[in-house]
Amino acid sequence: MTSKIIGVGNYIPSQTISNLFFSQHLFLDESGITLKQDNATIAGKLKAITGIEERRYAGNDQLNSDLGFIAARAAIEDAGIDPETLDYIIFAHNFGDVRFGTVQSDMVPSLAARVKHLLQIKNNFCVAYDLVFGCPGWVEGVIQAHAFIKAGMAKKCLVIGAETLSRVVDMHDRDSMIYADGAGAAVVAMSNEASGIKSHLSASFTQEEKDYLYFGKSYHNESSPDIRYIKMNGRKIYEFALSQVPAAMKKCLDDSGYTIQELDKIIIHQANEKMDEAIVQRFYKLYDAAVPEHIMPMVIQKLGNSSVATIPSLLTMILKGELPDHRLQTGNIILFASVGAGMNINAFVYKV
Amino acid sequence: MTSKIIGVGNYIPSQTISNLFFSQHLFLDESGITLKQDNATIAGKLKAITGIEERRYAGNDQLNSDLGFIAARAAIEDAGIDPETLDYIIFAHNFGDVRFGTVQSDMVPSLAARVKHLLQIKNNFCVAYDLVFGCPGWVEGVIQAHAFIKAGMAKKCLVIGAETLSRVVDMHDRDSMIYADGAGAAVVAMSNEASGIKSHLSASFTQEEKDYLYFGKSYHNESSPDIRYIKMNGRKIYEFALSQVPAAMKKCLDDSGYTIQELDKIIIHQANEKMDEAIVQRFYKLYDAAVPEHIMPMVIQKLGNSSVATIPSLLTMILKGELPDHRLQTGNIILFASVGAGMNINAFVYKV
Repeated sequence: MTSKIIGVGNYIPSQTISNLFFSQHLFLDESGITLKQDNATIAGKLKAITGIEERRYAGNDQLNSDLGFIAARAAIEDAGIDPETLDYIIFAHNFGDVRFGTVQSDMVPSLAARVKHLLQIKNNFCVAYDLVFGCPGWVEGVIQAHAFIKAGMAKKCLVIGAETLSRVVDMHDRDSMIYADGAGAAVVAMSNEASGIKSHLSASFTQEEKDYLYFGKSYHNESSPDIRYIKMNGRKIYEFALSQVPAAMKKCLDDSGYTIQELDKIIIHQANEKMDEAIVQRFYKLYDAAVPEHIMPMVIQKLGNSSVATIPSLLTMILKGELPDHRLQTGNIILFASVGAGMNINAFVYKV
Repeated sequence: MTSKIIGVGNYIPSQTISNLFFSQHLFLDESGITLKQDNATIAGKLKAITGIEERRYAGNDQLNSDLGFIAARAAIEDAGIDPETLDYIIFAHNFGDVRFGTVQSDMVPSLAARVKHLLQIKNNFCVAYDLVFGCPGWVEGVIQAHAFIKAGMAKKCLVIGAETLSRVVDMHDRDSMIYADGAGAAVVAMSNEASGIKSHLSASFTQEEKDYLYFGKSYHNESSPDIRYIKMNGRKIYEFALSQVPAAMKKCLDDSGYTIQELDKIIIHQANEKMDEAIVQRFYKLYDAAVPEHIMPMVIQKLGNSSVATIPSLLTMILKGELPDHRLQTGNIILFASVGAGMNINAFVYKV
């Protein structure tokens, strides 16, 4: 008995934000000193490293839970199930609902409860809760759904990952160009078939790594120290990810019993294209194997880093046939992996 | 095989807030009109209904995660375990870390990651995540720990409930006198003994109930609509709790196989003394039984409503022998129950 993804959905916000959006921003370094390069050069450099050309932002009237609801509704429709049969709604996020133009996170009631309300589910025993686990939150939600299923506490769980990072960015920080809004969801169900989750792994690195991603004040010295924004130590994260993620992926794949040659696809959190490529390179090097062509789909160019939403959003695009180089078929082996604030790393091996 | 609580700890903040603290507050109704009664009368009426005489607030230099850490450290010490053997740290809260004098919730990294850092745990496979489920968050955390244990994914989990509600209250709302700060924690471990969790139940009521507890603007008309506070529709919550909680408690007790006569103690979320008494009355009425003496410990008088912290904090007081009328001994049957934002209700039956 295992857990299988029986439906997926995503919501790609319609507001496309090109680099022009940032052209008049005053970019500063951590000390508040103006960056020497002009914004076009900064954006070009950013694109060269992360791959990001443009990103999507939610409409000003939308909340994070609204994005999650649209993705959730699509996933339920895709699964073809009666939503009243859901045992759990798990909503992964890190900032709650932040209304446009405000600075507070709202999680009362939980975003999962808001989605359940919007889905008009009447079954009171469908348990709705939120999960905070950094960018790997959606993958962790799938693992938690799997735990409930294995424990006999659930048969069907809806797992949502949605974030409106555009609401928590410091406009004086060039990293603001990385972050995006989005949502993805999947219905995870008990399965006695050969397909489903084959192994999983979760880890929290909380020693010096704890503050690699943090909520910090603006780089603008005249900004209030009481208003904070998503901040990252990019170099530290890069080094951390390269030293820890490939080993975690290997442990997870080895636990599944599948060989590196049997692996058909790697679906990894999209935070930085060059970093993801380096992680995959190192992962294959651990097996003395070459990286196959088309192993890792990458949509960061057009979508940016939408945190918990990137993996379920990407999975939906693949399963809907929107990425011609990345078709999946029954029996394929996928390795999901993510890394983010905590710092947390997780992964699961999945047979289609 | 089941799950057993092998250690408990709490942190009762040292700052005692008497009703005098509120004596100069301008209390308004929802429309912004000054309440007719003077503040002493309002406080007296509040005490008559909720039982609350005073409450505790965290020190201005403390964060919610700091409170959780102190309770967690005490629970680990009480359990006598090596913290490196923990498989999960689950931190239930609803507002993250809100620094004194600021309005933002900080959950990056998660509060569980912050506690793990403070505990200096090096084991990367100890997974740290936050759970948002309203006031019933700690009880839900215990149920999730039980799921991981049943699924073979964990042997020992630390479950923390901590909140600094004093940081999110509207000083113009008399309900602000209800809310308090606090923390409680327990180590939940796999057990093959007769003691432990015997049954559990979780439910989310998200139709019209969704907004009974919410994040809303101040009752003061000149306050910014963008700065929001914890708000409740007290009457609706009272009616909801009385109509739904006794039935949920009965279902959970019946599922455990124990009779109402075998029940030794009810540990219920402390939000309102009169409401809790009415819930227990109705619960016993469902069995046509009389409410036994000393069935329900109540510490709301001195501690107020500290949300997720009330149940683990109270459990610690009982197990440490701080409540002379409420001693527990091996073989006793306890029913835990909670209700709060979502609206969520949960319960578990536990054999000491």
